[in-house]
Amino acid sequence: MIINRLTVIGVGLIGGSFAMALRRAGVVGRIIGVDTNADNLDQALSRGIIDEIATDAVSGVSGADVVFISVPVCAIASVVQSIAPALPVGCIVTDGGSVKAEVVRQCDALMPSGSRFVGGHPIAGTEHAGAAAAFPDLFGGKRCVLTPGLTSDAGAIATISQLWTAAGADVCCMESGHHDRIFAEISHLPHAIAYTLVHAVGTADVEGENVLSYSAGGFRDFTRIASSDPVMWRDIALMNRDALLASIDGFSASLAELRRRIDSSDRSGLTEFFTTAKQFRDGIV
Amino acid sequence: MIINRLTVIGVGLIGGSFAMALRRAGVVGRIIGVDTNADNLDQALSRGIIDEIATDAVSGVSGADVVFISVPVCAIASVVQSIAPALPVGCIVTDGGSVKAEVVRQCDALMPSGSRFVGGHPIAGTEHAGAAAAFPDLFGGKRCVLTPGLTSDAGAIATISQLWTAAGADVCCMESGHHDRIFAEISHLPHAIAYTLVHAVGTADVEGENVLSYSAGGFRDFTRIASSDPVMWRDIALMNRDALLASIDGFSASLAELRRRIDSSDRSGLTEFFTTAKQFRDGIV
Repeated sequence: MIINRLTVIGVGLIGGSFAMALRRAGVVGRIIGVDTNADNLDQALSRGIIDEIATDAVSGVSGADVVFISVPVCAIASVVQSIAPALPVGCIVTDGGSVKAEVVRQCDALMPSGSRFVGGHPIAGTEHAGAAAAFPDLFGGKRCVLTPGLTSDAGAIATISQLWTAAGADVCCMESGHHDRIFAEISHLPHAIAYTLVHAVGTADVEGENVLSYSAGGFRDFTRIASSDPVMWRDIALMNRDALLASIDGFSASLAELRRRIDSSDRSGLTEFFTTAKQFRDGIV
Repeated sequence: MIINRLTVIGVGLIGGSFAMALRRAGVVGRIIGVDTNADNLDQALSRGIIDEIATDAVSGVSGADVVFISVPVCAIASVVQSIAPALPVGCIVTDGGSVKAEVVRQCDALMPSGSRFVGGHPIAGTEHAGAAAAFPDLFGGKRCVLTPGLTSDAGAIATISQLWTAAGADVCCMESGHHDRIFAEISHLPHAIAYTLVHAVGTADVEGENVLSYSAGGFRDFTRIASSDPVMWRDIALMNRDALLASIDGFSASLAELRRRIDSSDRSGLTEFFTTAKQFRDGIV
């Protein structure tokens, strides 16, 4: 047993799977669920993901050792603001948002004395949502990045790290800004590019033809992530704005270089560009 | 039976599958195979894809009713140049290249009097190559675009159309430049963008971190097409240069618009951009 009482605010795919993984590992006593969607909470209770439903976030955090906030990234700070006055002394608050610097900055400022915030980002997910989609193996073998802030202390970081390890994740710690620059490149930029590609192709005018009707499997695979939730990605883009803009500018410089090589029919330059990219890609399989 | 004698030059995934599909449909008499790779030809013969191996392209086209050229797009014209003096009167030459205007222009100029060239592009493929990977269902339900040129006549177009229909494809005809502008958008641009994304992320310097080591399933799916053959895509980019440059410029304009909306924290503008893209994407599933 690592902690007695866990409160999960937002019992969806991530929050629900975290609860299931910790219960299976036997490292948590009682799990309390908070969610704005009552049907989702009923489902979480009937699936045994949580032991009890709290009527609101303030009562839900009563007696909690750890509070896990798994809500949209732009709503995390407002949840912390609402629960801050009710947090027990010594309580650790953590989250699962995919942007960290702004979240940690906001939450650190809201934490009452004696409570601690540790930013977290499990690199896992599926295309499904809600408690119905949760499963305890979601984090198995996946990375979880922790980004300590001003209110994190060694004990709080150790506890959250132990929980994620018990949930099956490979845990690492880094500075929140460093996290955001990495994920701007490897996640937020690709989503921005996928949306942009579909937007550009969908609005392209080729003699009035419906160009998208000629798409084959490659285009569908390539653009799957452009089917993600637009509001979630709007919020991520805004929360990680500076790092994402820098990543977009790096991409644009690469695209300008490729364009130059095509325009000048630079055969060896194109071979080199495509081969380098293929080597990077094959290296991550 | 539509034709007696078919010569396939380049008995790989596309050429081999075309032969297998036509044989199964019972629309061709004898199939002759030509390939620069002797092992591949032996495999094609032992699998029954072809009836006979020709020692070279010139002898291979002797007596042919139809010659199907399925070689890299920049090599099609040189194949036609080599076989042109040996083509029987009335023979129809067609190809499977993914760029059409330049191929049709080159081949039209090389065709001897009495022979006819019809450009073709089956929209099908897998990640595997060679006669070993060929299978007769490859084209089932897939589009095949025919792009007639100056030497195409109604009879030649009808014969090639019947063959592709017998192979299971949905055949349509269009002007070669129109084809190239469509496929610049829906295929060549996405490949250029995938290569560029991996290139940009792979060379991004985030405090010396190996950013690619943080990739998850979404990045791998999104960038799979950047594992395609660099030389093939170099050739396609050069053969369809003008249309691809125009598509890149359209993409860059869309990306600049997205960047502007992120930079100005334009919430409603970002929601609109991502939602429009998602609708385009969901519409093609």
